[in-house]
Amino acid sequence: MVILGIDPGFRYAGFGVLKKEGRQALLLDYGYLGMSSSDSLITRIGTFHTFFEEKIKLYNITVIALETPFLGKNAQNFLKLGYLRGILYLLAHQNNSSIKEFAPCEVKQSITGYGGATKDQVARVILQLFPGMDIPKKEDVTDALAVTLCGLWAHNNQLL
Amino acid sequence: MVILGIDPGFRYAGFGVLKKEGRQALLLDYGYLGMSSSDSLITRIGTFHTFFEEKIKLYNITVIALETPFLGKNAQNFLKLGYLRGILYLLAHQNNSSIKEFAPCEVKQSITGYGGATKDQVARVILQLFPGMDIPKKEDVTDALAVTLCGLWAHNNQLL
Repeated sequence: MVILGIDPGFRYAGFGVLKKEGRQALLLDYGYLGMSSSDSLITRIGTFHTFFEEKIKLYNITVIALETPFLGKNAQNFLKLGYLRGILYLLAHQNNSSIKEFAPCEVKQSITGYGGATKDQVARVILQLFPGMDIPKKEDVTDALAVTLCGLWAHNNQLL
Repeated sequence: MVILGIDPGFRYAGFGVLKKEGRQALLLDYGYLGMSSSDSLITRIGTFHTFFEEKIKLYNITVIALETPFLGKNAQNFLKLGYLRGILYLLAHQNNSSIKEFAPCEVKQSITGYGGATKDQVARVILQLFPGMDIPKKEDVTDALAVTLCGLWAHNNQLL
């Protein structure tokens, strides 16, 4: 089982790749895709697709983990977040991966033991679990790693 | 200029294909893609992608016309509509097409001359413009043809 967790966004899209090795979670890759706001929506969607298609093929991803977003202040931005998620659903279809979605509180609960944890608290647990990480865009990457780990643990629990 | 107008949906996705021939609009294709609600989201997104990729390649589509949706009662359904739109943005990127988006009132204004027209009024105009159409899912198809025609006329106006 190799799991790719993504925190999609048109400016920064954080990601993490974890491999299940027995009882361990091996961190294969993490980081973020940065896209320029001066590029058109079409161009950025193409860039997003190419970037994650390569990751999925490179690591033979079996599961893509995503956090289910909730409607914020701007409905059109919320809709556009759907564009990126649609690309990930298509990639899952084309590469025989499955998609696991988690509510934000499920991810927080899973990582910190408390569904109301702050982003900072989540980040701290992630950095403790994977010490020595070099993270340029801290929150985008730790958020993605949190949903990746949540996906891995949810899978483990199903096996019990 | 060959334009593909789509009214995306997970149950029925209406579409129309119009080609600009001088001052005329030639109706090349129209209809809908029906998908089963018993299929998974991943499967339906794959089906949607394959169907419209074939149409785009078959007719050498240069423009994809879409109506901008507004947030309805269910935010998660609204988000999922974004998935299908994301697929169309990706197809536009991969096939060098452009995307034109129109607000619902722009489409209605363009077709009927009145931005507050009902779906039925829009359908009646479409059926008058293209007599002899055989339409099994009337509204899904006429809605798609309305946005297709709106895209074509908007292009004509730019040329004036």
